[in-house]
Amino acid sequence: MYKVAIIGASGYTGGELLRMLLNHPEVEITDITSRQYDGVPAHKIHPHIRDSGLVFNSKEPDELDADVVFTATPHGASMKIVPKILETGAKVVDLSGDYRYRDREVYEKWYGMEHTDEENEGVFGLPELYRDEIKKAKLVANPGCFPTGAILSSYPLVKNNLVDRIVIDSKTGVSGAGVNPSSTTHYPNIADNINPYKISSHRHMSEIQQELHGFEDVKVSFTPHLVPVIRGIQTTSHSFLIEDITTEELREVYEKEYDGEYFIKLMDEGEIPHLSSVRGSNFVHIGGFEIDETGRVVMLSVIDNLVKGASGQAIQNMNILLGIEESAGLKHFGLHP
Amino acid sequence: MYKVAIIGASGYTGGELLRMLLNHPEVEITDITSRQYDGVPAHKIHPHIRDSGLVFNSKEPDELDADVVFTATPHGASMKIVPKILETGAKVVDLSGDYRYRDREVYEKWYGMEHTDEENEGVFGLPELYRDEIKKAKLVANPGCFPTGAILSSYPLVKNNLVDRIVIDSKTGVSGAGVNPSSTTHYPNIADNINPYKISSHRHMSEIQQELHGFEDVKVSFTPHLVPVIRGIQTTSHSFLIEDITTEELREVYEKEYDGEYFIKLMDEGEIPHLSSVRGSNFVHIGGFEIDETGRVVMLSVIDNLVKGASGQAIQNMNILLGIEESAGLKHFGLHP
Amino acid sequence: MYKVAIIGASGYTGGELLRMLLNHPEVEITDITSRQYDGVPAHKIHPHIRDSGLVFNSKEPDELDADVVFTATPHGASMKIVPKILETGAKVVDLSGDYRYRDREVYEKWYGMEHTDEENEGVFGLPELYRDEIKKAKLVANPGCFPTGAILSSYPLVKNNLVDRIVIDSKTGVSGAGVNPSSTTHYPNIADNINPYKISSHRHMSEIQQELHGFEDVKVSFTPHLVPVIRGIQTTSHSFLIEDITTEELREVYEKEYDGEYFIKLMDEGEIPHLSSVRGSNFVHIGGFEIDETGRVVMLSVIDNLVKGASGQAIQNMNILLGIEESAGLKHFGLHP
Amino acid sequence: MYKVAIIGASGYTGGELLRMLLNHPEVEITDITSRQYDGVPAHKIHPHIRDSGLVFNSKEPDELDADVVFTATPHGASMKIVPKILETGAKVVDLSGDYRYRDREVYEKWYGMEHTDEENEGVFGLPELYRDEIKKAKLVANPGCFPTGAILSSYPLVKNNLVDRIVIDSKTGVSGAGVNPSSTTHYPNIADNINPYKISSHRHMSEIQQELHGFEDVKVSFTPHLVPVIRGIQTTSHSFLIEDITTEELREVYEKEYDGEYFIKLMDEGEIPHLSSVRGSNFVHIGGFEIDETGRVVMLSVIDNLVKGASGQAIQNMNILLGIEESAGLKHFGLHP
Repeated sequence: MYKVAIIGASGYTGGELLRMLLNHPEVEITDITSRQYDGVPAHKIHPHIRDSGLVFNSKEPDELDADVVFTATPHGASMKIVPKILETGAKVVDLSGDYRYRDREVYEKWYGMEHTDEENEGVFGLPELYRDEIKKAKLVANPGCFPTGAILSSYPLVKNNLVDRIVIDSKTGVSGAGVNPSSTTHYPNIADNINPYKISSHRHMSEIQQELHGFEDVKVSFTPHLVPVIRGIQTTSHSFLIEDITTEELREVYEKEYDGEYFIKLMDEGEIPHLSSVRGSNFVHIGGFEIDETGRVVMLSVIDNLVKGASGQAIQNMNILLGIEESAGLKHFGLHP
Repeated sequence: MYKVAIIGASGYTGGELLRMLLNHPEVEITDITSRQYDGVPAHKIHPHIRDSGLVFNSKEPDELDADVVFTATPHGASMKIVPKILETGAKVVDLSGDYRYRDREVYEKWYGMEHTDEENEGVFGLPELYRDEIKKAKLVANPGCFPTGAILSSYPLVKNNLVDRIVIDSKTGVSGAGVNPSSTTHYPNIADNINPYKISSHRHMSEIQQELHGFEDVKVSFTPHLVPVIRGIQTTSHSFLIEDITTEELREVYEKEYDGEYFIKLMDEGEIPHLSSVRGSNFVHIGGFEIDETGRVVMLSVIDNLVKGASGQAIQNMNILLGIEESAGLKHFGLHP
Repeated sequence: MYKVAIIGASGYTGGELLRMLLNHPEVEITDITSRQYDGVPAHKIHPHIRDSGLVFNSKEPDELDADVVFTATPHGASMKIVPKILETGAKVVDLSGDYRYRDREVYEKWYGMEHTDEENEGVFGLPELYRDEIKKAKLVANPGCFPTGAILSSYPLVKNNLVDRIVIDSKTGVSGAGVNPSSTTHYPNIADNINPYKISSHRHMSEIQQELHGFEDVKVSFTPHLVPVIRGIQTTSHSFLIEDITTEELREVYEKEYDGEYFIKLMDEGEIPHLSSVRGSNFVHIGGFEIDETGRVVMLSVIDNLVKGASGQAIQNMNILLGIEESAGLKHFGLHP
Repeated sequence: MYKVAIIGASGYTGGELLRMLLNHPEVEITDITSRQYDGVPAHKIHPHIRDSGLVFNSKEPDELDADVVFTATPHGASMKIVPKILETGAKVVDLSGDYRYRDREVYEKWYGMEHTDEENEGVFGLPELYRDEIKKAKLVANPGCFPTGAILSSYPLVKNNLVDRIVIDSKTGVSGAGVNPSSTTHYPNIADNINPYKISSHRHMSEIQQELHGFEDVKVSFTPHLVPVIRGIQTTSHSFLIEDITTEELREVYEKEYDGEYFIKLMDEGEIPHLSSVRGSNFVHIGGFEIDETGRVVMLSVIDNLVKGASGQAIQNMNILLGIEESAGLKHFGLHP
């Protein structure tokens, strides 16, 4: 059994890591840390995880006994902690934004803080794009939730130079806002409501642009909406064709790109991807494959923001780092209905 | 007191007409018809409308005693009924799609049936655009719910030749699907889910195109999503500027266009329009007013699909037809929270 | 026009008072106070109330120019403010718990604080029970939300000595917890969940007991549940018959008790009262009227917790205090669906 | 690998059996039958179950190649099918009500039909009460969803002669109504609503009474409520003590009864069981353990109605029948949040 530890295990992503790792066939959890809940049994914070025997501790990053460490720490905190863990020889999957950018200036612009770790580079942890790089990495920067859904829905379009503009219109469940209550997550403000926010300037846009931009000069826009859903991100990607293609050609581009991907499921014709189909699971359902009379391509994707959008993808990255089956511990289906 | 009647009063739009007309200061309801519920008291179908004394009857269209008749009948049925009502001298507000199109062929293409009423033309019943025409009309074609939110959010852009492409990404509450249950409206399929549908070919697109197209050659696309909301349509309109303008200029265009409109409220800077703010009311809240670095304009609107998107707007049209205060019976605020 | 003022107008009950009073035919709002939002326009806090011209101020209780003042202030604060208002000659409808108890010791036990106003007594503001007393009052103690639904559903049973034990199992919408976010109201904790709380010791039990107890020695128990609903309290009242009666006799007892009550609607046989039927309205729907083989009576009631359970009932009390039509400004129906 | 088959696999319980059995370490699914969907791949009906290779067929009950057969068939259909399966030597877990009653007359009264299988008797499949009987059985009658939550929450009280009356007030998610849409499950009728139904005469009452009655003459009442939740049953059990006991004694009774039960978790003091803690899992969380001043015991339980209330419990029963680890394939935690 490989040993894993979780730093900052009291939030939703920490809970999800616990939920899935406790039934993972090849790892055991050695430490879960939380400064705030030092000494508290896991189930007091994660009421569904009972009788795990796990208790939060406040060990320092360099005191952990682990092959892989998950840093479920806030942006800005990870860059302080990660170097210390890497020095112990452990590999790291970081769930913050700190190591996602190839260009540090983009990070500093969007996250509004200086990046202090000049030594370590992360590999962008989207296995469907960077599997080979992840295999060789010591530090994986787990992607953001919106970017995971957005990039996977649109990457084949830009890779094949089919479009010159993409508008990502995303709808996210409230768990994406984390475990701490605020006016934004107050039930009466969310239920029976649709709340667009940061409509032209969400920082995940920069992460999406980094990944969808490079091949060609594609204009990428992004607008997120907070919706009355607990888990899940539904992405509608509107793209504009440079040249005419048929919907059959469109579908083939995706089939070719994602051939053999365990977690990506392309919908049949007429099937719409639904959040419930991936709820609680690491699967990504991609559908749409339509082109309207104005030359707009409509692609759709759904993920569970806490799983493929965070902790599940982190475990997928861990599996790759450990050289074990990529889907180990992640084979469960979505919870539909 | 003016006399009004409702044909097809057993659905949600019928219930909404009752809810608001029963407290309208200047009208009385003379007849509510329903073939299915002939003889049944209103509260058996609309459980919130108690002690109104109203009972469904099955009078013929030409037997009604009314100054204005609302036809809350399905597409295809209205064109059979409306001519008979008009012959009685009553004015009509039709809530179906039958009379919304200037070009009958567009109707026939999108509704898949022949239009059999070659005599009567409807005025498109969006008072903010066509108030003067409505005043003189005998037949008002009440707009669709999606088009109301979409057109009002984007009309100033096309009127002023600012954009060459608009993508309307709309999210609708489930009451828009009507009172009859189906797999589409089954609670476990809707709750905690986001369901895009007819993603490149919803027939309301043609109605939106009719109204946003005419000024210039603007490409208009539309994708609706069914969301876990009872009432309301939230519209995010992504448009692409032909020439650079500032956000101040953008706002001024809207302020000028909607100056003096009772039901349209433009959000302050930083305010996001929320469905709850207009829930149950005839108000439209419009916000956004942002431009991103790719030249995309983001506009937002919210309406209650059953009120401004249907029955409230129908009453607004009735008020105009009757020459009384346009907001009579429609002054109530949204139900927030 | 009568003049009214609202102290503590920034919460949900304040917003509801505004929503309804702004369309009330016989009153005008002179002041809305909020220490926190002094100088802020009403719509910044209540986004649905636009163009009212109202701005929060921080006037002292004795500076208000009003015939009736609503104190939408927390428990403990009202008893400090109310005496000062009464000295100005204004009448008061207090929405806190401070003046609801005939026995001050009960208050002090359940609210955990000393009651410092020894001079003024409130009338329990449930018009269906205490209309005559309210007419003559200067200070009305508006009942709690749970007690309103509970008492109205069970009062005829105890008044007629039919039962010796009542178990009130109530389900409340989240707006009852107020406008301030907390872990309890965090969307992911409420949605798709049912949360019982204070299952044997909620302080509203004492208020229910006060009103249902007095006639005979009836054991009254109460368990509330927080449910994924924005507005509304659904009450299921399980009571145990002392002697056998028929369901017809049961129904007659209620019909007799509530004969002529504008806001109370008794369901027909087979009709279940639904929250949506009273959403946003001041109506109470009462149903059930069943007796099972163990001698248990099942009664059901629904109210909107912010309207009949708070602000609507407060306006009903105001109308009585002013000697105007009891339903003035409160005639609107529930928002179904 | 043991072989299992599912008759009537197209409903929610069928989907849940698939979801869990496909990841079960010791069984393989040989057949899934559905007359309606003969020849259709599983994912067309269960969109979350992709690439399973399973296709619905319409084999007859005696054509199945299985060690255990699940009959997820309607009441009345099972009694026709089960005898034929038993003749093949396969064991059966029946998810209908047909074999749950020790007294056939009770079944016939509540299900309104004659019971035609006079040969076979089922064991009531609640392993926590009847594990030894299940081990030896050929036919297990999987309990109803409400009874599972109700019985487990109250059984220790009646077994120990502590109470003389129990009122079960249950709140169920909508998936309990099955996959077929109806007015009852129409989103606008469920969302933001609480719908009590069959308030004194739901047939699950008879099943609860059968299990809680026998020890002593205890009066058992039951009222279900349909709530805006997809999955889960929250049970509040109000019981009345014959003699005073302390809350410590109350808790000990439960700890003793459920000692060693893998799927039953007793909440710590102050912990409320939440639906989300068991969502998608086979666990039962039991809490409450309070006694109010009237001698009322308040106990609470939560289950996932489709798992411990149906398919998970069926797999638990299968595991017992096969003599393998009782929790095999059922170790996953609830999906919180």
